[in-house]
Amino acid sequence: MTAGSAAEASRGFAPLVENPAAAGPFMLVCEHASNHLPALWGDLGLGPEARRAHIAWDIGALGLARGLARRLDAVLVHAPASRLVYDLNRAPDMPGAMPARSEHYDIPANAAISVAERLRRTEALYLPWTSGLHGLIARRIALGRRPVIVTVHSFTPVWFGTPRAVEFGVIHDADPTLARAVLAAAQRLTPLRAALNAPYSAADDVTHTLRIQATPYGLPNAMLEIRNDLLATPEAEESMADMLAPVLNMGLAEIQKQVKAS
Amino acid sequence: MTAGSAAEASRGFAPLVENPAAAGPFMLVCEHASNHLPALWGDLGLGPEARRAHIAWDIGALGLARGLARRLDAVLVHAPASRLVYDLNRAPDMPGAMPARSEHYDIPANAAISVAERLRRTEALYLPWTSGLHGLIARRIALGRRPVIVTVHSFTPVWFGTPRAVEFGVIHDADPTLARAVLAAAQRLTPLRAALNAPYSAADDVTHTLRIQATPYGLPNAMLEIRNDLLATPEAEESMADMLAPVLNMGLAEIQKQVKAS
Repeated sequence: MTAGSAAEASRGFAPLVENPAAAGPFMLVCEHASNHLPALWGDLGLGPEARRAHIAWDIGALGLARGLARRLDAVLVHAPASRLVYDLNRAPDMPGAMPARSEHYDIPANAAISVAERLRRTEALYLPWTSGLHGLIARRIALGRRPVIVTVHSFTPVWFGTPRAVEFGVIHDADPTLARAVLAAAQRLTPLRAALNAPYSAADDVTHTLRIQATPYGLPNAMLEIRNDLLATPEAEESMADMLAPVLNMGLAEIQKQVKAS
Repeated sequence: MTAGSAAEASRGFAPLVENPAAAGPFMLVCEHASNHLPALWGDLGLGPEARRAHIAWDIGALGLARGLARRLDAVLVHAPASRLVYDLNRAPDMPGAMPARSEHYDIPANAAISVAERLRRTEALYLPWTSGLHGLIARRIALGRRPVIVTVHSFTPVWFGTPRAVEFGVIHDADPTLARAVLAAAQRLTPLRAALNAPYSAADDVTHTLRIQATPYGLPNAMLEIRNDLLATPEAEESMADMLAPVLNMGLAEIQKQVKAS
């Protein structure tokens, strides 16, 4: 065992938290922040190109989320490992939790996962993540500061050979209120080609985090999806954060106005 | 600090789990199993009569749940402390989480809870409970054995001086499927005066456990409420378990038939 893997094994894979004492209302969540493959699972049978590709992580999402967290004074919670080991935005029995194939890539180590290995990854990665995130949320609720949950994702501009026109997607789970307000703000404040529930929606099982962490508490929530060619450099991430921070603020202000008026 | 309170402080207030390796599909949950007041909170300003009353716990619910767990080969998860310190079936910001008054009783130590004390009880009681129960559920899901979540409660026969006629209530959260099937089975198999969403319903915020633990995963779920004069002795608890175990089995069989037919 290397020093790195020993440290990982001892501290486990809790969520990484930045700005935990943030004063703002937003809690930003980045389930696909990292393409790190923990030593416990080796390289999953993948070459370096696949391990850098969008199948392993949401390229640019963490940089954007950090830029947003600074501008909004928000808590940021992000994943410590690649979604190819465990996709933290999926329940343990969803095929996508430990995908055997993703777009054009086979993931050899995920081809025939035993029940014992599924349990092992659930215990190692999913449970510390869900408990850690839930603890942050419940503590804020106890303090009378109900957080606004926004998950930050990116998507590939070309999917199975087909270019995607949408640049900014806003996806909702059961409650569309914040997602609709954020979309309206994006259409008003930015030149982005924006759409609701694109390039996919809750029907594709992509709102697991919102569904288990935000919906049951009635917290305002939305999932953001940014086309990753718009997040290709640190400068691009910062520029997107400049564009989207006011969008989130305007969206939240709008739904707070609606609540006061009702 | 007494030996008892030292032990409690060091082990915390994790859920108590019986029959964790159970082979059956049911997971029984008893949020109001105990009237124990941990030494950390003293007697909350209550006399012995109030500490034994239904405001402190669901009288007979744990005995019934144990009887059901034996008959159904079910996991049983129950609370280690009284709901007067923290009601585990409530979110941290619900007034009922640490009630200042319950029926005819004032709870002096809950009269003016500070934000710091609300956070302290949330961390001490609510978070270990929710994480522990979630871990049990997620592990079963990972193993391909999606559990059926049934919470077991009892209610007082006289509420603010008014007798309650209903003897057995079945309450649902967002998905009524199992609750309706269990009610139909009770009407067919037992002489109990049974009703749906009585003596209260999800609108009264009583389905928190179902809402955060079962609904997001699409697990079959229901909340049972038994009038506590029917659980007044160990023999009565056993007799009620004899009556309700076949009701739960028939309700589950019915919804499994519906799934196969659709």
